[in-house]
Amino acid sequence: MLIGEKKIERPLRWAMIGGGRTSNVGYKHRLGALRDNTAYELVAAAFDIDEARGREFAENLGVDGSRSYPDYRTLIQEEAKREDGVEVVSIATPNSTHFEITKAALNAGLHVICEKPLFFEVSEGEEIQKLADEKGLIVGVTYGFSGHPLLLQMRQMVQNGDLGDIRMVELQYTHGFNATDAGDKFAEGQKWRVDPKIAGKSFVLGDLSTHTFFMSELICPDLKIEKLLCDRQSFIESRKPLEDNAYVLMHYTNGAVGRLWTSSVNAGCMNGHRIRIIGSKASIEWRDNQPNELTYEVQGEPIQTMIRAMDYLYPECNEYERLGALHAEGLPESWANIYLKFAIAIDAKRRGDQETLDHLVYPSLEYGIEGIRWITNCVKSADAGSTWVAYK
Amino acid sequence: MLIGEKKIERPLRWAMIGGGRTSNVGYKHRLGALRDNTAYELVAAAFDIDEARGREFAENLGVDGSRSYPDYRTLIQEEAKREDGVEVVSIATPNSTHFEITKAALNAGLHVICEKPLFFEVSEGEEIQKLADEKGLIVGVTYGFSGHPLLLQMRQMVQNGDLGDIRMVELQYTHGFNATDAGDKFAEGQKWRVDPKIAGKSFVLGDLSTHTFFMSELICPDLKIEKLLCDRQSFIESRKPLEDNAYVLMHYTNGAVGRLWTSSVNAGCMNGHRIRIIGSKASIEWRDNQPNELTYEVQGEPIQTMIRAMDYLYPECNEYERLGALHAEGLPESWANIYLKFAIAIDAKRRGDQETLDHLVYPSLEYGIEGIRWITNCVKSADAGSTWVAYK
Amino acid sequence: MLIGEKKIERPLRWAMIGGGRTSNVGYKHRLGALRDNTAYELVAAAFDIDEARGREFAENLGVDGSRSYPDYRTLIQEEAKREDGVEVVSIATPNSTHFEITKAALNAGLHVICEKPLFFEVSEGEEIQKLADEKGLIVGVTYGFSGHPLLLQMRQMVQNGDLGDIRMVELQYTHGFNATDAGDKFAEGQKWRVDPKIAGKSFVLGDLSTHTFFMSELICPDLKIEKLLCDRQSFIESRKPLEDNAYVLMHYTNGAVGRLWTSSVNAGCMNGHRIRIIGSKASIEWRDNQPNELTYEVQGEPIQTMIRAMDYLYPECNEYERLGALHAEGLPESWANIYLKFAIAIDAKRRGDQETLDHLVYPSLEYGIEGIRWITNCVKSADAGSTWVAYK
Amino acid sequence: MLIGEKKIERPLRWAMIGGGRTSNVGYKHRLGALRDNTAYELVAAAFDIDEARGREFAENLGVDGSRSYPDYRTLIQEEAKREDGVEVVSIATPNSTHFEITKAALNAGLHVICEKPLFFEVSEGEEIQKLADEKGLIVGVTYGFSGHPLLLQMRQMVQNGDLGDIRMVELQYTHGFNATDAGDKFAEGQKWRVDPKIAGKSFVLGDLSTHTFFMSELICPDLKIEKLLCDRQSFIESRKPLEDNAYVLMHYTNGAVGRLWTSSVNAGCMNGHRIRIIGSKASIEWRDNQPNELTYEVQGEPIQTMIRAMDYLYPECNEYERLGALHAEGLPESWANIYLKFAIAIDAKRRGDQETLDHLVYPSLEYGIEGIRWITNCVKSADAGSTWVAYK
Repeated sequence: MLIGEKKIERPLRWAMIGGGRTSNVGYKHRLGALRDNTAYELVAAAFDIDEARGREFAENLGVDGSRSYPDYRTLIQEEAKREDGVEVVSIATPNSTHFEITKAALNAGLHVICEKPLFFEVSEGEEIQKLADEKGLIVGVTYGFSGHPLLLQMRQMVQNGDLGDIRMVELQYTHGFNATDAGDKFAEGQKWRVDPKIAGKSFVLGDLSTHTFFMSELICPDLKIEKLLCDRQSFIESRKPLEDNAYVLMHYTNGAVGRLWTSSVNAGCMNGHRIRIIGSKASIEWRDNQPNELTYEVQGEPIQTMIRAMDYLYPECNEYERLGALHAEGLPESWANIYLKFAIAIDAKRRGDQETLDHLVYPSLEYGIEGIRWITNCVKSADAGSTWVAYK
Repeated sequence: MLIGEKKIERPLRWAMIGGGRTSNVGYKHRLGALRDNTAYELVAAAFDIDEARGREFAENLGVDGSRSYPDYRTLIQEEAKREDGVEVVSIATPNSTHFEITKAALNAGLHVICEKPLFFEVSEGEEIQKLADEKGLIVGVTYGFSGHPLLLQMRQMVQNGDLGDIRMVELQYTHGFNATDAGDKFAEGQKWRVDPKIAGKSFVLGDLSTHTFFMSELICPDLKIEKLLCDRQSFIESRKPLEDNAYVLMHYTNGAVGRLWTSSVNAGCMNGHRIRIIGSKASIEWRDNQPNELTYEVQGEPIQTMIRAMDYLYPECNEYERLGALHAEGLPESWANIYLKFAIAIDAKRRGDQETLDHLVYPSLEYGIEGIRWITNCVKSADAGSTWVAYK
Repeated sequence: MLIGEKKIERPLRWAMIGGGRTSNVGYKHRLGALRDNTAYELVAAAFDIDEARGREFAENLGVDGSRSYPDYRTLIQEEAKREDGVEVVSIATPNSTHFEITKAALNAGLHVICEKPLFFEVSEGEEIQKLADEKGLIVGVTYGFSGHPLLLQMRQMVQNGDLGDIRMVELQYTHGFNATDAGDKFAEGQKWRVDPKIAGKSFVLGDLSTHTFFMSELICPDLKIEKLLCDRQSFIESRKPLEDNAYVLMHYTNGAVGRLWTSSVNAGCMNGHRIRIIGSKASIEWRDNQPNELTYEVQGEPIQTMIRAMDYLYPECNEYERLGALHAEGLPESWANIYLKFAIAIDAKRRGDQETLDHLVYPSLEYGIEGIRWITNCVKSADAGSTWVAYK
Repeated sequence: MLIGEKKIERPLRWAMIGGGRTSNVGYKHRLGALRDNTAYELVAAAFDIDEARGREFAENLGVDGSRSYPDYRTLIQEEAKREDGVEVVSIATPNSTHFEITKAALNAGLHVICEKPLFFEVSEGEEIQKLADEKGLIVGVTYGFSGHPLLLQMRQMVQNGDLGDIRMVELQYTHGFNATDAGDKFAEGQKWRVDPKIAGKSFVLGDLSTHTFFMSELICPDLKIEKLLCDRQSFIESRKPLEDNAYVLMHYTNGAVGRLWTSSVNAGCMNGHRIRIIGSKASIEWRDNQPNELTYEVQGEPIQTMIRAMDYLYPECNEYERLGALHAEGLPESWANIYLKFAIAIDAKRRGDQETLDHLVYPSLEYGIEGIRWITNCVKSADAGSTWVAYK
């Protein structure tokens, strides 16, 4: 059970790049990193392209105004001059900038925590991987839903054979907030998401379903995709070639099959993020709008609803428990859990503690690269007329 | 509101072929037909290949033992000799026999109500269509879920533009009762379903999802499939080439897309029959395990749950209401509604009342043929390596 | 599993008194009695105070017009003259007439099935009990929800100690359809319910919650009330002294306690009929708007949802199963089950088969009397300033 | 929308008394206070009666070990000597100590945030009120669920007449974790709760339902109790005279009625905290295990489910929004909201900003006193044989 006590010797000196006042996601990073003040300390920031607004915001969060910088380059350069300079930066900027910022940060010896989708190309991911390895640095990816404790229960159940052989994976991350193009025109956080130059080659595949795809990898680490087929649509014409709706079919090497639906035009849908894993004996299903419950359906037995924090869960699940079973956790706890793991990974890396790194289950760089690979294959299939493509 | 009063001059003299004591579905036919004793009267039967068991069963249901026949041929032949002979027969036998029995019954001047999937080939359907037209007879298909009143509400909402333009159709009919092969070996009602000679070219596509496909046609009459892709699996090897799991992707001529999942190996799933229609403004969703509720989600508004029988529903929906809003209807009411409509159709046909026939929304022969066409296209796609096939 | 086969030698000749075209509840009686045509045959009726309307209605249901009578007296008198006269009558008239009609029917040698609340006074119930015993006749009470199969599962679970010692009983039957007085003025079926001369000394206590109270007796046959307290309100002034909302607290002789809420002014409530039984180890909960599910909560274990018809249920529950687990049953199946049991009781009574009568669990006369006793105690408490009254 | 920016000039210097490593609730205080590091800074603590454990814990949370004190007296005394001494203390100790610690803190000029139930006697509350007024200090009460944003939506809906006249209040806070006495014997956090010397005159009434009672006051500020009746039980004998189950009936001065159930022996119940407010036109219902949804049921209209953060909610509700509608908030956000309000109140008090204080809706001292008054009346009624007592 987590209760806020330190897991690493002292909090890491942390800076944010992007994620300022007008960013919804920026607050999620801070909610995650600063949960207990024992893993990170926010000491610097390049929050905003509007320098004055960024500084005011930083100061309002308690950051020394002199360490609010106009851009990431200045931040990296100036912090490098300080003895107490930042050790790790979080990147919460539009997609097209992730690669260059990550590279610059690593080159400056900083650990990196970066938004998804990580980069545009797998090759970029591999270049970063090589650089991070050389520098001995961690790159974490903020698959922010993936810290919900019950996902670890699902992982253990799959691993322990509670479901039998895995046959099907059913993934969905949909909502309806882009059913019209209103936001495309006016909302700062939406405009760039439908601009291929900034967002990359996908909209909802990258923005929404890479989360869910990672969660399926977390739960079913042994499943490897053999081939997939993606059918994508742009119901709002102006979004072309970027999709606002996509279906993916997947065949795994072990004979299992999978299906994914992602959409931001699923009008009215408020509970459209869910994962179902189906085995030869039983299924499990989880939805992120009620993250405290897990459905466990054994064929021929009463349906079971498992509740977060209860003693009947696997210890691996309850290790990340914070509140007790009667109390609802929400998304901030999930972010806090992955940020805590990033800190543990960084600390272990610094200490050369490979055993800790080998056992820590978290959204590491390799999963970020897998996310790029998956999007790349999806787009390739869709652009080839929604045909099957061998996964590579 | 229905209250049991006659809708046709007198009850039709009705016989069942198949659906005897060991048949689950046979009782559903009787629950549907005999709901109010004002539409049908069960006067004869060829319930069972075990003649004595069939006769005892018929007598236990109140049928005169002398009108319990050993097979459908005898039934048709002997009843034809009576002045008060049967007027309509229901066919609840395995799939492979539907065509010949339907043909024989029509040739004997009898109306027919037949289980789905109707026949094996579209051409058979067309032959029957021709014959029925010549004879002036009705052939109805027991898409037994399709009589739930809220489906008519959905149809009206789509028709009246409450959802905006239809963009997506999301269909699912899955359960887990065949997660193992136990039933394939021992259960009388399951064995033939996985035998291609008796079941035809599909298992779950025909057994389960033709229901759901028809319901989508009922709700969205204007959607026409342009092309589809089907990916099917036989998780239990011995079922090959018949599938126990299948995914279908559909493109409609108006630019809408659709998805269907059918499975009898969705382990533990007890609520896996659902329909979601997504428009540019709103979505509606219905599940058959709680048929008294309809979710209506308008983007940007509170989620609405509509309850069967309430005054705010369209009159077309409440016309088939029986109990009042506080009281749960179940599957038998759905069967009763479609059987009532078959009776109204037969009666109208006899009276030459084309107007009634033109306005009656029910699972008629043409929808049975559409079901065959859909299965045929699905199997063709699956067998061609799960590639897109132009729908025809 | 029920499949429509006869349980008694031949269908009983049955008549309805009340429950004509304008009656919602009348149809429920017919849905119950005529489910399989093997337990009852509707041969006569006194449906309506409007004789012509009643006759037309009877004929529309298939009853010989000559056996549609203007009132119950004529029905009893005329049918007595026939060799094939009625054997059992159902009384679906306003409360104030139940006693005299029941008495007349019994005196004419007819079995009786009567709406709840049965009569106004316990003494009337005792008089009828004596008369029925003398005549060797059955009086059944249409607690129409009590035939849902899962209630028998609950009874078995309590009996077998699955819950441990019973500590609390939580009962609710509420809706909001009388939140305003609109119906009181105009709706034929509502007007008399708020007139003490016709309805008796209670409105919702008798109209709604006697159902739920009986179901609690069915599930927990060993619980006996020691004392109770009732607090009732008339939120619509014109209903005084009859209540449209009431709370009841109960102490049972074994130390258990209970609570009941009944209301027809629970604005907007569409799922307000539920029963929760709490033991020292576990609880069970059932709602009538989803009668196919039962929640079973063992302290410290995952929540279980049991589904109707599954093999893991007690045999006593599945004996009344009709459709199979994937298919929703509704209220008509519940009515069919209790009507079937009335027929079995009547048949056993005629045959002098006391063993069958001793083992048959159904809403018999004694439970009807218990319902009157419970209302009487509630009203007594409420009228004494909502104080505790010793139950007797 | 909240995003972490400061609401007061600088964070308050804050200390905790109690709530150390073995305390579940202590972490909730820290989750609440330290959410954004802009309202509080944890600078000192008397966490534990085990001094060494307390110090280690404090240091692990980042508190300077020299400011970890063995008891509250030392804390108050030593911190008073510092220029940068604490300004506000949170009291998370067993009930019996609240009064003396609060008094000591106020006398030392410190603001106080105290666990519920506040004190044992209303007179103690009044003494503290007088002292706090004299000193110009704030006393807040951690009704920790009351910060959920949708409760403010409920308050606005009631205030704006969306429900019509309020007729009924239905309150429940139950769980089953004390169905046996195991925890009473061994669990540090449970033992004292059933010891009247430490817990006071009630167990679950004070421990659980004072939360819910306060939330009803928050939502319906105009309802005043006229009289109440409480029926309480100790299903585990050793808990006597303290109750583990209680029912309360309430009459309000405006003619509305209410009902409350609190229990820690509701075996297996995991979702037993809920509030329903019923008006003449509509009802609203909220459950704390899914705090992101609010059911709004208008009689005669579809049931509405409102989702946290959506634009259709009242501005007063969305002012405390942190994540956006697609993302689940949990209990920590509720705690963060009330702790933020305590800080705003303290800041306003210091600045003499009475207007802010007049408009701030939060669990202030007066509501803590109301909680004591309510428990006192409940216990008085229960001990008088569960009779009605005039509320005072």
